[in-house]
Amino acid sequence: MSEKPNILIVGAGAIGSFYGAILKQAGCSVSVVLRSEYETVRTRGIRINSPLGDLSYTPDAVYRDGDTLPQAPDYLILCVKVLPGVDRAALVRPWIGPATCLVLIENGIDIERELADACPKNPLISCLAFIAASRTAPGEIEHQAYGKLVMGRFPDGLDDHSHNLAALFREGGINVDLTEQVIAERWRKCLWNTPFNPLSVLANGADTLTILDTEGGEALIRALMAEVIAVAAADGFTMEPELIDKNIKGTRKMPPYKNSMALDYLNGQPIELDAVLGNVVAIANRHQVPVPHLETVLTALRMRQPAG
Amino acid sequence: MSEKPNILIVGAGAIGSFYGAILKQAGCSVSVVLRSEYETVRTRGIRINSPLGDLSYTPDAVYRDGDTLPQAPDYLILCVKVLPGVDRAALVRPWIGPATCLVLIENGIDIERELADACPKNPLISCLAFIAASRTAPGEIEHQAYGKLVMGRFPDGLDDHSHNLAALFREGGINVDLTEQVIAERWRKCLWNTPFNPLSVLANGADTLTILDTEGGEALIRALMAEVIAVAAADGFTMEPELIDKNIKGTRKMPPYKNSMALDYLNGQPIELDAVLGNVVAIANRHQVPVPHLETVLTALRMRQPAG
Repeated sequence: MSEKPNILIVGAGAIGSFYGAILKQAGCSVSVVLRSEYETVRTRGIRINSPLGDLSYTPDAVYRDGDTLPQAPDYLILCVKVLPGVDRAALVRPWIGPATCLVLIENGIDIERELADACPKNPLISCLAFIAASRTAPGEIEHQAYGKLVMGRFPDGLDDHSHNLAALFREGGINVDLTEQVIAERWRKCLWNTPFNPLSVLANGADTLTILDTEGGEALIRALMAEVIAVAAADGFTMEPELIDKNIKGTRKMPPYKNSMALDYLNGQPIELDAVLGNVVAIANRHQVPVPHLETVLTALRMRQPAG
Repeated sequence: MSEKPNILIVGAGAIGSFYGAILKQAGCSVSVVLRSEYETVRTRGIRINSPLGDLSYTPDAVYRDGDTLPQAPDYLILCVKVLPGVDRAALVRPWIGPATCLVLIENGIDIERELADACPKNPLISCLAFIAASRTAPGEIEHQAYGKLVMGRFPDGLDDHSHNLAALFREGGINVDLTEQVIAERWRKCLWNTPFNPLSVLANGADTLTILDTEGGEALIRALMAEVIAVAAADGFTMEPELIDKNIKGTRKMPPYKNSMALDYLNGQPIELDAVLGNVVAIANRHQVPVPHLETVLTALRMRQPAG
């Protein structure tokens, strides 16, 4: 048996496959739980084309619903999309032991509680991925750029699990920022994502510069960002208002691009509307913070959902 | 020569063709100015299937750009869509004499000023059409239901032209409500149209009940309506807040339907975004009335425009 921990990836899309590859590079045992891509990955492994080199690997084991594990993993890494129809606690429960550390690499705000409530005794690490990667075919991933993780214990602090896992990711070749305030980091990421992502969907896939350069567009983004800051503050997380300027200037410096939520929408995939926007509005309502701009975007998108 | 006035319809789509037919029924001379449907209508006339009976007619004359009239019309009825690229003053100017009464049958708020400024000496009548009618083929109109006009002099009052024209429309078989406050009537119609129409476009064609029954949907409609009331009040037109309840109850009593802006959008036609929403937000800005919900809907739709 290796001294390196056993990793189980649940939800081996682009994100899960990529970070599994990094831990494989670090010498971990990496297994995956799959549904539709089970046969493909069992036969051919996972192929990853990356600027870091060829990260393709054969998982140590490939599981599907109903299988039983020889031993509970040290870390279970959950990378499924956060969607209303997806019961993440149920996806995790069959695969964990009492000491398994749960690791979430997922977008959004307030997406940990469901798992923390379902598995109150398991350590829980929350991560934000700054990465551009996409699944191009079953078992095939294109890693375009970036890859940094921001990581901390949920709801705050750091523990041995965080330090050990960060060391493994770094050994595998990516940057990790450890944080004692992972929720604050989620709010900082949402400051950009919550305005830009859903708005690009409402605008049927408008890119960043189209959004900013439309008449009233930059003002709307600023108003949405100000609302996110107000909600975060009411929830105990202060962000400096100067971050709005910084985010807009930073966005204008980059080439125009369509964010992942817009791409999912254009590809007919479900979007993480609640994780990125709905939960922010729910927190606003709890604290009675008025968020008319966020609310309008959210409700208009909800009206559209039934039309598919 | 008939004692009945000469009518010229500019923009003989569903609305123009229908109200032309009504005046034809009343014994007026009715001519039309057309572009793409010139040859068809010249050859075959205008066919209108209506619950009022077969309203098909052969216009007394069919004109196109560059033609000259034997005499200026008594009434020029303008029924083109109010769109940023359409110079309505230029469409009207070649066809009017010094005494021609301009009649607008068009949607929206603040859509008269452009014509009033361009033709300051001509009488100007402003009308709202409550009708369900659509163009089904070149020169062919399906009149589904309703047809009432609300009519008054712009900017207010009534004059002989209003009374005479109303009498002709009534003689032709439709109801006319004369009003000394036509702008107030426009605000009352916008109280429904300004929230529902653009929102249904944002929601990619959601019908009235989908809009109201989506989580947060009725609350959003109420918030949008309250903003319209605040803007109208700042502009000098008071509407009772009870109208919000009335409008929502009335909408819930009707079968779910897609409004004309949603249908235009789904058919790839341009939408009257400025007439119905942009002008309301512009008036709000002039009076510094905050309209965050209206503003979000407007800007999100503007972002979408370039994508076609």
